[in-house]
Amino acid sequence: MLMTRKAAVMYGIDDIRIENLPIPDIGPDDVLVRIRSVGVCGSDIHFYKEGRIGSVVVVPPHILGHECAGEIVGIGANVKNLKIGDKVAIEPGRPCGKCELCLKGKYNLCPEMIFMSAPHPRKLDEGAFVEYSARPAHFCFPLPEHISFDEGAMVEPLAVALQALKQGKISAGQSIAILGCGPIGLAVLIAAKAYGCSPIYMTDIMDYRLNKAKTTGATEVFNVAEEDYTEKINKLTGGRGVDAVIDTTGSEKAYMGAVAIAARGSTIVLVGMSANEMALFNIGSIIDKELFIAGVFRYNNVYQQAVNLISSGIADVKQLISHRLKFENIVEAMDIVAKKRDNVVKVIIDI
Amino acid sequence: MLMTRKAAVMYGIDDIRIENLPIPDIGPDDVLVRIRSVGVCGSDIHFYKEGRIGSVVVVPPHILGHECAGEIVGIGANVKNLKIGDKVAIEPGRPCGKCELCLKGKYNLCPEMIFMSAPHPRKLDEGAFVEYSARPAHFCFPLPEHISFDEGAMVEPLAVALQALKQGKISAGQSIAILGCGPIGLAVLIAAKAYGCSPIYMTDIMDYRLNKAKTTGATEVFNVAEEDYTEKINKLTGGRGVDAVIDTTGSEKAYMGAVAIAARGSTIVLVGMSANEMALFNIGSIIDKELFIAGVFRYNNVYQQAVNLISSGIADVKQLISHRLKFENIVEAMDIVAKKRDNVVKVIIDI
Amino acid sequence: MLMTRKAAVMYGIDDIRIENLPIPDIGPDDVLVRIRSVGVCGSDIHFYKEGRIGSVVVVPPHILGHECAGEIVGIGANVKNLKIGDKVAIEPGRPCGKCELCLKGKYNLCPEMIFMSAPHPRKLDEGAFVEYSARPAHFCFPLPEHISFDEGAMVEPLAVALQALKQGKISAGQSIAILGCGPIGLAVLIAAKAYGCSPIYMTDIMDYRLNKAKTTGATEVFNVAEEDYTEKINKLTGGRGVDAVIDTTGSEKAYMGAVAIAARGSTIVLVGMSANEMALFNIGSIIDKELFIAGVFRYNNVYQQAVNLISSGIADVKQLISHRLKFENIVEAMDIVAKKRDNVVKVIIDI
Amino acid sequence: MLMTRKAAVMYGIDDIRIENLPIPDIGPDDVLVRIRSVGVCGSDIHFYKEGRIGSVVVVPPHILGHECAGEIVGIGANVKNLKIGDKVAIEPGRPCGKCELCLKGKYNLCPEMIFMSAPHPRKLDEGAFVEYSARPAHFCFPLPEHISFDEGAMVEPLAVALQALKQGKISAGQSIAILGCGPIGLAVLIAAKAYGCSPIYMTDIMDYRLNKAKTTGATEVFNVAEEDYTEKINKLTGGRGVDAVIDTTGSEKAYMGAVAIAARGSTIVLVGMSANEMALFNIGSIIDKELFIAGVFRYNNVYQQAVNLISSGIADVKQLISHRLKFENIVEAMDIVAKKRDNVVKVIIDI
Repeated sequence: MLMTRKAAVMYGIDDIRIENLPIPDIGPDDVLVRIRSVGVCGSDIHFYKEGRIGSVVVVPPHILGHECAGEIVGIGANVKNLKIGDKVAIEPGRPCGKCELCLKGKYNLCPEMIFMSAPHPRKLDEGAFVEYSARPAHFCFPLPEHISFDEGAMVEPLAVALQALKQGKISAGQSIAILGCGPIGLAVLIAAKAYGCSPIYMTDIMDYRLNKAKTTGATEVFNVAEEDYTEKINKLTGGRGVDAVIDTTGSEKAYMGAVAIAARGSTIVLVGMSANEMALFNIGSIIDKELFIAGVFRYNNVYQQAVNLISSGIADVKQLISHRLKFENIVEAMDIVAKKRDNVVKVIIDI
Repeated sequence: MLMTRKAAVMYGIDDIRIENLPIPDIGPDDVLVRIRSVGVCGSDIHFYKEGRIGSVVVVPPHILGHECAGEIVGIGANVKNLKIGDKVAIEPGRPCGKCELCLKGKYNLCPEMIFMSAPHPRKLDEGAFVEYSARPAHFCFPLPEHISFDEGAMVEPLAVALQALKQGKISAGQSIAILGCGPIGLAVLIAAKAYGCSPIYMTDIMDYRLNKAKTTGATEVFNVAEEDYTEKINKLTGGRGVDAVIDTTGSEKAYMGAVAIAARGSTIVLVGMSANEMALFNIGSIIDKELFIAGVFRYNNVYQQAVNLISSGIADVKQLISHRLKFENIVEAMDIVAKKRDNVVKVIIDI
Repeated sequence: MLMTRKAAVMYGIDDIRIENLPIPDIGPDDVLVRIRSVGVCGSDIHFYKEGRIGSVVVVPPHILGHECAGEIVGIGANVKNLKIGDKVAIEPGRPCGKCELCLKGKYNLCPEMIFMSAPHPRKLDEGAFVEYSARPAHFCFPLPEHISFDEGAMVEPLAVALQALKQGKISAGQSIAILGCGPIGLAVLIAAKAYGCSPIYMTDIMDYRLNKAKTTGATEVFNVAEEDYTEKINKLTGGRGVDAVIDTTGSEKAYMGAVAIAARGSTIVLVGMSANEMALFNIGSIIDKELFIAGVFRYNNVYQQAVNLISSGIADVKQLISHRLKFENIVEAMDIVAKKRDNVVKVIIDI
Repeated sequence: MLMTRKAAVMYGIDDIRIENLPIPDIGPDDVLVRIRSVGVCGSDIHFYKEGRIGSVVVVPPHILGHECAGEIVGIGANVKNLKIGDKVAIEPGRPCGKCELCLKGKYNLCPEMIFMSAPHPRKLDEGAFVEYSARPAHFCFPLPEHISFDEGAMVEPLAVALQALKQGKISAGQSIAILGCGPIGLAVLIAAKAYGCSPIYMTDIMDYRLNKAKTTGATEVFNVAEEDYTEKINKLTGGRGVDAVIDTTGSEKAYMGAVAIAARGSTIVLVGMSANEMALFNIGSIIDKELFIAGVFRYNNVYQQAVNLISSGIADVKQLISHRLKFENIVEAMDIVAKKRDNVVKVIIDI
C-alpha cells in the first residue's frame, strides 16, 4: 500500500511546493478520498498572494484548496452510505454538530466549524491540494457515473450560489440582477437559470466576463464602467426594478446600485466578501422600499441539491471551467487566477 | 360599431347554443376584450354534463369558459396599464379587494369573489365563451408579441400549477411526484420543470396520458392500474421518498399513495377536486413523518409569473394543446373532452 | 345637521390655526368618523417644525395627524361591516387595491398610496386633526366598548411595532434588543412582550425614557451615552448575542451596535427613519454572521392584530400616554413633543 | 462512591418493580444526571397498560419515563457547557447528527433517533424512572436557580406545545382553538398564551378538564358531549372561524370539527396521536378553504425556548402539576394517570 501522498504546501506568500506527506489515518466515521479535481478559489489566491484575508492569517506550512471531488479508497468502520470506488463531491466543512446553530440546521454558522484549508488558530483542517484526504463520510456526496470529477469540484461554487438563492427566497419567474461576473456571479447565473428566474441582468467591468455571462445565459449584461446600468434596468422593468439583486462584488458602489434597482419589498443578497468591514449603504431606501438584505456565509444543506441539479443536467457547471492544469503546474494555475490571465473563469487542478 | 357578439349559452345539460347578445358596457376601471382563445376545463365539462359540481349548480341561461386570452378593444377612463390592441391573458376572478383575505394577498379565498363562469346565487360573472367580454383592467396581463392567444389561454392552468408549487414551498433540485397526468397534472409538470425539480415521477391509469407525461419531461411514469408505484418510487429514492407530492386526482387511493411516498418532513399538495367531501387519510403517518398537507384553491398573484415563464420560453405550454376547434364547433369540443376522445389533453376554442 | 367642523390647519412652519371647514361628503364605500383622539407622532413634529421630511415637503394649507380613533356618524350605501355609533381605530392609508403590491398583500408599499396627512404632490389626504373625517370603511376597525378612544389612537404606533416584529420573524422566547426608547421603541417593547420575547434589552440616551422602558417591562436598559451596551449585552448572553435587534433610532452609531450584538443568523429590523439616506453599515459582519436586515415602512395587515392585542389586555398601550390636551391646545401639544418636555412619551389630543 | 441506583423496571403489563441497577458509565461528550423529577406521560401509560403503542412494542425488562430534570453529578472529558451541580432539563432524544434530516435541523425526524424510554428493536435508550442517567451534554439545558426540578420536567410537554405552534406558524393576536384539555392541550394553552394568542377556545368531554382549562386562561371552553362547539365558535367569530386549530385528541370527530371552525387559509395542527392510522378527513374543505394541515412529531430546537419562557415567568407550567408522588409510589402514580383519578392533570414522580 502507498504510504505517502503528494501535497502542495504553502510556505509563505508566493511559495507553494509539492512535497510528500504521510497518508492520514481515518476515524470510524471517515473515509479516505483520492482527490482528483480541485478548483482554485479566489480565497486561495488571497491567502497565496497576501497571506491573509482580513484578520484570518495563514500560518505556514499550510495546504490550500477546498473545491474538490475524488474517489473513495478507504472506509471507516461505521460508514454505511459509501463504498470503495464511489465518486464523490466533498463538502469541505466539519461543523461540531452539537451547538445551537448546528442543531437548527445552520451549521455553516457553527462557531466551532473547521473548514478545509481555512486558517484557524486551534483547529486547522488541511486543504484539498493533496492526493489523499481523510473526510467525514456524511459530507461526501456520491456522484453518478456520468458526472466527471471536474463537475464534482464545481459543486462547491454552485453550493454558494444555491445558498444565495435560498437566503434570498428566490423562485421561478422572478427577475433578478447579479452584480459581478466572476466565478461566483456565473455560478449564481447557472443556479438562477435552474430556478427558472427570468430576466437575469448581470454587470461587470471586464468585457470577457460579460461575454461569458451572455453566452452562459444572462438576459442582458452591462459594463458598469461604461453605462448607467441602474437607469437601464429600471427602464427595462418599467420603473419597477427587479425581484432580487445578488451582489458578488463586495463593492460599496455595487450596494448603491443594488438598492437603486431593487423593487419595493424585494431582497438584496450579499455574497461577495467586502474589501472593508464598513461600507455606506442606502438605509433610507431600505426602509422606504421595505427591503430585505440577506448575508450569505458559505452554505448549508445545499450540496445534495447541487449534485441533483448537475446530475440531472439542469445546471451545466462545465461551461465555467476555462482551464485544467496538472498538479505539478499548481503555481502556474495560481498565477492564471491571480492575474485574471487568458480570460480565466475557473481553473481546475487535476491532482 | 358592432353592437352584438356571439356567445355560447348553456340552456341545460348537454344544451349549449351559440346566440347573439349585446356587447357589454365597461366601467372606468374595465377593458373590453375581444376574446380569441378559450381552453376547455374539466369544470366546464362537469357543469355541461351534470349541471353542477357538488353544491354549485348552474342556473341557465349560463355561459361557461374561463381559460382565456384576447385583444383589448375598449378601455375605461381610469385604465393606464393597457392600450387598444394589447394582447392579454385574463385572470378570471373579481375579488372584493377590501376583505381581510384580499388585503392579505389571498384574494383567491375572498368570500365575495366573483369568478368568470362559476355559478353564483347572487353575483354571476358570465364565462369566456363569448366574442367580447368586459374585464377589470388590473386582471388583464399583457402578452408579448411572440406569444399566441392560445398560449395566453394556457396561462390559467399554468397558474393553478404555480399556486400548487407555491403552497408546497417547492424549489429547484427537489424530487417530486405528480399524481395524475390530466391537463392540471401536466401543467404542474411543466411548472415543476421550470422550477428545476428533478426527478419528477408521475402516475395515471391511461397510457396515452402517461406517454404524454413522458414526452413532456417526466423522469419516470407509472400506470397505477398495473404496478405498485409507491414501492417503485420508494426503491428509486433509496427508501427516502420524495420532497413533495402533488395530487391532481382527488382520489382517496391517491392520498394513501401520497403519504406512502412522501419523505419525512415533506409536503403533500392537494390540487385535484375530490369527488367526495370526506376521504380516508393516513393521519398516523402525517404525524409520524411530520408532513404538511396544503390545499390549493385556484390561485393568487401568479399570473404575471406564469406570463413571464411562458414569454421567456422556460415553460412551454403549447405542447399541452392537443386540439383546436372553431367557436361554432364548441359542442364537439365539449364532447372530445368529456369522452377523453382522440388522446385529448387540452382543447382550445378559437373564438 | 352640523355643516362645519373644526380643523387644525398648518399654514407654515410653527403656524397651525384651528378653523372651520365644511364637513366632507362620503362615497358609497366610506364612513364619516367623528374623530375623538389623535396621537402626536414624531413625523407631525418634523413637518410642523421643518416643513418637510427629506424630500417630502408640506404645501400649506395642510392638516397633520394620523394616529386616530373616533365614532362612526355616517355610513356609505355599500358599507356593511360598520354601523352608526361604532367606536373605531382608523388605519390611515388608502392603497390603490389594484397594483402588484396591493394584490400581494403589501399594500403599504403601493406606489399610489394616499396616506392621511402625508404631503403628496398629486393625491393629498388631509390629516386627523379635524372633528370629522371621511374614511374608507374597510380601514376602520371596530373597538369593543371597554376600549377607549385614546387606546384606539394608540393602535397606530402599535401597528408599526407589529410590522417590525413581523418583518423580523420574531416569536416567543426569543431574546431581543430594542434601540431607542421613544414612543416607537416603547411600542415595540409592548408588542414584544405580547409576543413572549424575553429578555428584552433597551437603549437610549435619556434617563427618563430608560426609566419608562424599565417600568414598562424591559429586562435591562442601557444609557448609550454612559456605558458600552454592546459589551454588556454580549456578556449577558454569554457571547451569543440576541435573536433580533430592532432599531428605532435611525442613527449610524446604532447600526454598528446592532451588528455587534446580533447573534449569528439573526435579524436586524430597521424601523427608525434615518436622518440621512446613506449610512455606514458593517457589511463584513452581515456576511460573516449571515444576518438579515429588514426594513419597515409603515404596516400592512396588522391593525386587527393590534386591536385584538389591546382588547384582550395582552398589550397595554395606555401606559405610553403621558399627556392629554384639548384640541384648542394643539400648539402647546406640538411644543411638548418637539421639546421632549415634561418626560413626554405620547401626547393625545382630545378632539 | 455510590455504585448502584434505583430504577423502576417494567417486566410486563401492569408490572413495574423498583430495583437496583449499576450506575452507567459516561462517554466524553456525556454527563451523569441525578434524576430528580419525572412527569408521567400518556405514552408511558399506554406502554404500561397495553405493552405497546401501535406497532411499537415493549420488550421487557424496560424502563419508562422521559419528561425529566435533574442535577449534574458527573461530566465527560469534552463537556464545556455544564458543570457539577447544574440543574438541567433533559431533552430525551439522541439523533444521529449526520443524516439529511439532522443536518437540516429536523432532528426529531432522524431515522436513527434513539429516544429515552421509546422501545426500539436495535437501539434502546432506557427511560427516566431511574436515580442516575447518562445523557449527551448538549441535550441538557441549564435551569436557573429559581426554577424547580418539577418545572424542569415540565419543559418536555411545553416543548411539544411549542413545536405545535411552530409547525402551525402561529403568532400573537391570532385566535385559536385547542381540541382536548389533557396535559398536552393545556400545555398548548400555556404556550399559546405566551405567544399572545387570543381568543383561545378549548374543548373536551370531561368537565374537570374544561374547568382546568378555564382557570389556566382559556377564553371559552366547550363540552363537546353537550354542545355544538363548531356552531358556537363560528358564531363567536362572526362566521370567520379561527386562525389555527390544534388537535390534541387524535379523534376523527375532532378532525371534522377542526375543518369546520378553521378560517379560510388557516392551519390545522395535528399533535394528538391517532388511535387509528386511517381517519376520515374533509378533503373537499381543505381544498376549498386552502387549509394547511401540519403534523407534529415530538419537537426540535424548542427546549431552550421552553426554558426561557418558564424562567422568565411567561409560561407558568407549575399550574399543570396536580400530583407529586415519591418514587416508591410509582405504581400508584401510573394508576392515577391511567384511571384519570382525582382530577389528574400531570403527575410528577419525585425520584
